[in-house]
Amino acid sequence: MEDLRYREKLLCSRELHPEDSIIEVGEGIGCVRIGGRYTAGVPAVIAGPCSVESESQIIEIAEAVKAAGAAMLRGGAYKPRTSPYDFQGLEAEGLRMLLKAKAETGLPVVSEIVDAGNLDLFADVDVLQVGARNMQNYALLKALGRTDKPVLIKRGNAATYQEFLTAAEYVLSEGNPNVMLCERGIRTFETYTRNTLDISAIPVLKGIGHLPVLADPSHAGGRRELVSSLALAAAAAGADGLMIEVHNKPEEALSDGRQSVTPAEFAKLMSRLRRLKMDIEE
Amino acid sequence: MEDLRYREKLLCSRELHPEDSIIEVGEGIGCVRIGGRYTAGVPAVIAGPCSVESESQIIEIAEAVKAAGAAMLRGGAYKPRTSPYDFQGLEAEGLRMLLKAKAETGLPVVSEIVDAGNLDLFADVDVLQVGARNMQNYALLKALGRTDKPVLIKRGNAATYQEFLTAAEYVLSEGNPNVMLCERGIRTFETYTRNTLDISAIPVLKGIGHLPVLADPSHAGGRRELVSSLALAAAAAGADGLMIEVHNKPEEALSDGRQSVTPAEFAKLMSRLRRLKMDIEE
Amino acid sequence: MEDLRYREKLLCSRELHPEDSIIEVGEGIGCVRIGGRYTAGVPAVIAGPCSVESESQIIEIAEAVKAAGAAMLRGGAYKPRTSPYDFQGLEAEGLRMLLKAKAETGLPVVSEIVDAGNLDLFADVDVLQVGARNMQNYALLKALGRTDKPVLIKRGNAATYQEFLTAAEYVLSEGNPNVMLCERGIRTFETYTRNTLDISAIPVLKGIGHLPVLADPSHAGGRRELVSSLALAAAAAGADGLMIEVHNKPEEALSDGRQSVTPAEFAKLMSRLRRLKMDIEE
Amino acid sequence: MEDLRYREKLLCSRELHPEDSIIEVGEGIGCVRIGGRYTAGVPAVIAGPCSVESESQIIEIAEAVKAAGAAMLRGGAYKPRTSPYDFQGLEAEGLRMLLKAKAETGLPVVSEIVDAGNLDLFADVDVLQVGARNMQNYALLKALGRTDKPVLIKRGNAATYQEFLTAAEYVLSEGNPNVMLCERGIRTFETYTRNTLDISAIPVLKGIGHLPVLADPSHAGGRRELVSSLALAAAAAGADGLMIEVHNKPEEALSDGRQSVTPAEFAKLMSRLRRLKMDIEE
Repeated sequence: MEDLRYREKLLCSRELHPEDSIIEVGEGIGCVRIGGRYTAGVPAVIAGPCSVESESQIIEIAEAVKAAGAAMLRGGAYKPRTSPYDFQGLEAEGLRMLLKAKAETGLPVVSEIVDAGNLDLFADVDVLQVGARNMQNYALLKALGRTDKPVLIKRGNAATYQEFLTAAEYVLSEGNPNVMLCERGIRTFETYTRNTLDISAIPVLKGIGHLPVLADPSHAGGRRELVSSLALAAAAAGADGLMIEVHNKPEEALSDGRQSVTPAEFAKLMSRLRRLKMDIEE
Repeated sequence: MEDLRYREKLLCSRELHPEDSIIEVGEGIGCVRIGGRYTAGVPAVIAGPCSVESESQIIEIAEAVKAAGAAMLRGGAYKPRTSPYDFQGLEAEGLRMLLKAKAETGLPVVSEIVDAGNLDLFADVDVLQVGARNMQNYALLKALGRTDKPVLIKRGNAATYQEFLTAAEYVLSEGNPNVMLCERGIRTFETYTRNTLDISAIPVLKGIGHLPVLADPSHAGGRRELVSSLALAAAAAGADGLMIEVHNKPEEALSDGRQSVTPAEFAKLMSRLRRLKMDIEE
Repeated sequence: MEDLRYREKLLCSRELHPEDSIIEVGEGIGCVRIGGRYTAGVPAVIAGPCSVESESQIIEIAEAVKAAGAAMLRGGAYKPRTSPYDFQGLEAEGLRMLLKAKAETGLPVVSEIVDAGNLDLFADVDVLQVGARNMQNYALLKALGRTDKPVLIKRGNAATYQEFLTAAEYVLSEGNPNVMLCERGIRTFETYTRNTLDISAIPVLKGIGHLPVLADPSHAGGRRELVSSLALAAAAAGADGLMIEVHNKPEEALSDGRQSVTPAEFAKLMSRLRRLKMDIEE
Repeated sequence: MEDLRYREKLLCSRELHPEDSIIEVGEGIGCVRIGGRYTAGVPAVIAGPCSVESESQIIEIAEAVKAAGAAMLRGGAYKPRTSPYDFQGLEAEGLRMLLKAKAETGLPVVSEIVDAGNLDLFADVDVLQVGARNMQNYALLKALGRTDKPVLIKRGNAATYQEFLTAAEYVLSEGNPNVMLCERGIRTFETYTRNTLDISAIPVLKGIGHLPVLADPSHAGGRRELVSSLALAAAAAGADGLMIEVHNKPEEALSDGRQSVTPAEFAKLMSRLRRLKMDIEE
């Protein structure tokens, strides 16, 4: 890292924790393990819509992604949007719908939390996602560090690897070891893609640290037609997981339709991922 | 802006509010007006240490910057730091010391708030600063929008002009019109400077919007020897205000000593600013 | 592209040339075909040292990379270096050594040309490489466009996709259709890696255009330990070729030793690439 | 600089040449001196159109900018354009027209050279400009280093300060000490402005090195309405010179009309610059 002075004492570093961390999500038969040998060469896939829009929408998508092999369901209820006048999510009602889909399919669910004051509402959400805009909202990270829930932190769009790892450290240092990192693209001069997927982040973060590293090809590229290539590349680079936006009617999506794939396209991507036979031992 | 679709309905835009906004800070004789003709060609200067470190430190610096002509005193009590192991500020005790310095000098005070839960502690702080890391912490911005206090928002280090203005909109749309913007440098490939001061942000934001625009040459350059040139440039570009880090013992500062000027250097900068005779009418 | 006004009339676009271009390098049994079905799922690998340093060095490396399955040999003789005081390459003598290695191994050779005045010296070099610094040296590109030799253009470190494609257009529009593009990393705020490999460039450039697209994981990451992961990712994203820096004594290399792999590491990478079974039909 | 290993031996550094370099442009009464006390607080202004379009156009503009106080005339004859299908300049005929305007007004002239093979055609051009795209075209820089003409190098749009200074070193190390540097904006994520004027480059480059540093607010901002604010800011930051695009009919300009000011706007800017009374001693 451009500045290595923290490395020796970071809980997220290999120095203090040489073996890969394994994060357990959900319980019973639905339990998913992420990290180390569990996801080497075969990333766990989190799929679903950017936003929960209705009970029928989230349940229909949940059943489709489960059938295609997704390990978890994603769905946003609290949406930090650039403009206060954009759709902000269905909030508590959206969480209720997401949990209904969890009950129907048995898939563990992932949803973004933007305010520690809402923690009670997330009691049955399996993974608490911290979005890129809040990656350095240390008050929120510390509050999540005082829970024992799995936390998925997305990289800020201009965060260095060191800043990303020290953000995770805010959760770890409060006592919660269940942290996953997600590369979702950084901001560069190139505007054809929504962001620039920093594929190097995967081997770098897994080399310096022991936390599972996921990638989000949907937000990174911002274009449906790129999702498959970027997902395969992330898997080949060693990603422990992938977040894929899937919508049953992308053209009608209330957010991020441009980068959402259909259930049919998602099923094809899953089969390509399975056919990507990665040789995991060096 | 790369995307003008919001412009027409933004409260921060000239379309809805053609004249410059004037923000009043403090009351009585200590009252400072920022914006429009009040600061045209003669920016209001906010000076002080990055962090409040002791009562004697903040009072000594406050008296020095007041004597040199500063309009407001800055001092951090809650410090969002990249590492959880770095000095995090004196918190409530630091605010108490800052308010003591306010009482001693009569200077209105500016301090960063990182958690809406602390609002009560900031009751006597004149300007609530939102740091670059929290520029898109919309939960915090909305909470500040429900107060009537002046809010100073620093630009996120990778925020576009549109994202910066829509962040301000989160405060305005909740009913608080007292918002100031501060350009503090953006993240680029150049690492010699801590950040790259985007001097164009000053005329652009004042052209599109009506809110006062300040600049922070200390954080932007990250080097003591650049502060004076960057401050003069910002004034020439039309900045309504400047934030300057001043420390009585920079080499011993608990944070940002590298970019802090001494009281003597600050006095020289103030005299150069006064000698910079800007011709304000086009 | 952020600006599509050129698209319709660009010779490099799918609009004018729907099928993939196939570039033939070398002749007779050593002939290599790059593009389309020839390299779908199995990228052609160009391997060798950053700089030709001696006849024994280049021949030893050439034999090693050939044995491991490389399709072409790379070796720099004219080196554009940031400082005029750095090693500038062995120039004409370096080309002679490179051609000796070609004669010994039968591998087609790739070398960078920095001045059209040197074209005669490159008569027996199979692929003329234009480096990132010269991507917009249009005088050079036009001169290469008046030859019929394969030209490999590396992306400028801050070039947009459109600028990269229009640089290729300078060669194509002069009459030379034998152009290959190489993504070699862009310059971003992240300094842990030498550059940021823009993996999206591969599917984007192959989608908009018909020219073969290669990737250079060595220059992109700038670190030996990242080369393998980035090469596998580029292959999974659909790269038609890879440029890999290989040195028999990386620690003694006159340039770029930090990012060069040994012949043994290269052989292992080649076997991993072969084991990466990409399913090429969607 | 991120890498200081060259500093000690760079001819452009203050270590080897503590005093400011003074560059003499033109001869006799038209002679202009740039650097040190000659331009401290009062930058020399180079004005004119992006491209020479006709004899009447360049002469009309030359007379207007001379009347307003410009020190030199700029006019492009060889235009490196992103697309080979864009207007490429009038070439030799454009240079003839530019020299006609020089004869009519006595203003020294500045024009871009893209190929060392054209040096004879530039015999009567006073300043040879190297554009941003060719900042690392070392073959061209070395050729200019073997002349004794003033060379104006524009910063590459992603060049670090060190890369910019070492590009100048390619000219200096060949024996030509007459080099000027020009900050023209760097490429960042912000797209509202054409580039991001890196105002810090002025004090940094003048601090590390001894060569005159100019700024080009026209290319940096890419918008007519920003030219005045950015020019004033550059002057306040200590620029030794300014390059301003002026066109008599901006809306009809064959290139860069969007960022060109009219002669009337230019005259107003010149009067604001004169009224900007910089106090040059610290």
